[in-house]
Amino acid sequence: MSKQYDLDWLVSVDDHVIEPPDVWQRRVPVKFLDRAPRLVNDGTNEFWHYEDLRIPTPGIAAVAGKSREHFSPDPVPYAEMRRGCYDPVARLEDMDRAGILASMCFPTFPRFCGQMFHEGKDKDLSLLCVQAYNDWMIDEWCGAAPGRFIPLVIMPLWDPQLAVKEIERCAEKGARGLSFSENPVRLGLPSVHDKNRYWDPVWAAAEEANIIVCMHQGSSSYRQTTADDSPQLVTMAWAIGTMMSGALLDWLFSPVFHRFPGLKIALSEGGIGWMPYYLERAEQILDKQRFWAAEGGHKLDRQGNVVARELMEIDPLSLDVRQLFREHVYGCFIDDQAGLALLDSVGRDNVMIETDYPHSDSTWPHSIEYAHKQLEGLDDETKYKILRGNAERLYRFTPDAPPARTA
Amino acid sequence: MSKQYDLDWLVSVDDHVIEPPDVWQRRVPVKFLDRAPRLVNDGTNEFWHYEDLRIPTPGIAAVAGKSREHFSPDPVPYAEMRRGCYDPVARLEDMDRAGILASMCFPTFPRFCGQMFHEGKDKDLSLLCVQAYNDWMIDEWCGAAPGRFIPLVIMPLWDPQLAVKEIERCAEKGARGLSFSENPVRLGLPSVHDKNRYWDPVWAAAEEANIIVCMHQGSSSYRQTTADDSPQLVTMAWAIGTMMSGALLDWLFSPVFHRFPGLKIALSEGGIGWMPYYLERAEQILDKQRFWAAEGGHKLDRQGNVVARELMEIDPLSLDVRQLFREHVYGCFIDDQAGLALLDSVGRDNVMIETDYPHSDSTWPHSIEYAHKQLEGLDDETKYKILRGNAERLYRFTPDAPPARTA
Repeated sequence: MSKQYDLDWLVSVDDHVIEPPDVWQRRVPVKFLDRAPRLVNDGTNEFWHYEDLRIPTPGIAAVAGKSREHFSPDPVPYAEMRRGCYDPVARLEDMDRAGILASMCFPTFPRFCGQMFHEGKDKDLSLLCVQAYNDWMIDEWCGAAPGRFIPLVIMPLWDPQLAVKEIERCAEKGARGLSFSENPVRLGLPSVHDKNRYWDPVWAAAEEANIIVCMHQGSSSYRQTTADDSPQLVTMAWAIGTMMSGALLDWLFSPVFHRFPGLKIALSEGGIGWMPYYLERAEQILDKQRFWAAEGGHKLDRQGNVVARELMEIDPLSLDVRQLFREHVYGCFIDDQAGLALLDSVGRDNVMIETDYPHSDSTWPHSIEYAHKQLEGLDDETKYKILRGNAERLYRFTPDAPPARTA
Repeated sequence: MSKQYDLDWLVSVDDHVIEPPDVWQRRVPVKFLDRAPRLVNDGTNEFWHYEDLRIPTPGIAAVAGKSREHFSPDPVPYAEMRRGCYDPVARLEDMDRAGILASMCFPTFPRFCGQMFHEGKDKDLSLLCVQAYNDWMIDEWCGAAPGRFIPLVIMPLWDPQLAVKEIERCAEKGARGLSFSENPVRLGLPSVHDKNRYWDPVWAAAEEANIIVCMHQGSSSYRQTTADDSPQLVTMAWAIGTMMSGALLDWLFSPVFHRFPGLKIALSEGGIGWMPYYLERAEQILDKQRFWAAEGGHKLDRQGNVVARELMEIDPLSLDVRQLFREHVYGCFIDDQAGLALLDSVGRDNVMIETDYPHSDSTWPHSIEYAHKQLEGLDDETKYKILRGNAERLYRFTPDAPPARTA
């Protein structure tokens, strides 16, 4: 008798919280209160005040419940947001309605991997803000329904030793994901190729705690454009595949997975449709170019002229990027026909689903129905893996028994 | 009775010439001879001398006949190149051997769209060099076997009026393709979105002459890297999909196809495996973001904050990027399982094949056999389209009757 799979619910590995106004004000010591993030509404504008910055919340980051005719990047005040953006109890109701059994949420004000605090002037305050966010995320947001929210934390990117302490502290409290940058170089930080192994303590701590390194699209604070006068829609359509493919290739050709064989990464809101092409291309490049690369290699300038020699830290002759991908990399999608059509090239065990609530790409409130439309034609075992199984295994997360579906 | 297709031969829409040493020296007036490109071998190094530059030929641009163990980016002298790199009669023999019925070749020393001359100091000399290349390409290279070589020309990028004259002059002589940049902004030139319509005279001339605008990967002279210390192999694996997807999105969201409905573009050595994902993504972005974009739009900064308003020149509410793609865009591939598996998303009439002789990605000398391995499972009509039919139609090129295959 074939196994029966419950396909009524999905686990979303990428959603977003809009932090309530008091997250930092309730947690940092009094002497930091005037510089810690606080929400200000001056009657005309609403924005976060942090150190000397004024940061509004972009409208397309909080569109849940709006029809697309009303989407806008213009700043949006909390009063005009759906309550589920910032209130975990209201979020749960929205999840129940859309068939979302569990959800992992990325930050908004701190930006996807805490870049805001990395850029903070007073790093004592920055560290307190990171800790405050993580405490709030784990204790209050996830704490509101521990079997429904998967805890994802940020770290002090500017200090790997402090990062290790924060990772250990959060692991103890149940963290399952650690947000990292799709390209730390854009944040003024060393790359994953760094010869001085800046990030090694972080990878060691994440591996030890079995925490997944999650890179959300946009987490380099860099919006690549083709031209100053290209329409914003070009930048938006180009962003994910381009930045995420760079991140994937960086990791596959870095020494990190070889030194930390238990480490796993997830490309969050990264899509999957570009992966088969880039995996194939990486294999072609290795196939053709690995011999000279193994002999000391060459650094080429922008015209392709040899300007310096470089020795790769890993041996390109034995590098198997597809095996590394299978063992270490997880992708997820909102809406991705190209990727699902080539599912076996990405791997049935390496793909998860997301709903991106409350962003403009979200499938909410029709998430589970829309998921099934996309998964049509796949067998039930594969559907279950993509809807829940892979996420539950990767994040070691057993959701609560499903509630009765609301409509 | 079903139609019989001759599937023994292919038309390659992307190969490369290594220019013979005398291309420019035989053609420019005497007073320019010491500054026009000439090949110098000083006993230790061989390089082109042009104005005050010394430019060697990179080894991976001329590997035909070498096993991949001997590929190297190190400069290669002509004496170590296979004769087919620079001699059209020897090239024909190599084409016969590999089942290549016809070939369109891109320049080497001028770079893919003539960037070298665009960067030249003396623009009088630059123009003469562009004309000399085009004359040599059409009269001598293609002239050696007019039914086997498809003429592709370059233009003076720095002056659209001169470019128009050169396009008209070359069209008269039989040019079928015009090499343009994947991103002219990287060359210090206006983008395809330019409000001053810098390129309009060029598009008008190309449309009028029924010449295809070809953008070869790398034609922006820009090798995008993820990090200064990332291995060269990452840059190589990232290059094509990333730069070409930017070019495709630029064109699909630009006003050019609307103003020049007869204009067609080809993404040369661009691959096709990334296209289904980006076409889908472009449609998603339009679906969700077109309403605010239509109302004046917004320019966002790198963090996603609104910094300025912009009005798109085309109406995003009626923009159909997939239809524009079908009618105006042609892709080609060397080796691309991902793209062929999603062929219908790219379009059976929009895909051509290439052999990339004599570059390191080339399938030569097993091009036709390797092509059939890749096309396995497709019907004969589709195979014929990809092997020959689409290229012959697009470039209005009727190849000579096939010679007897040599082995």
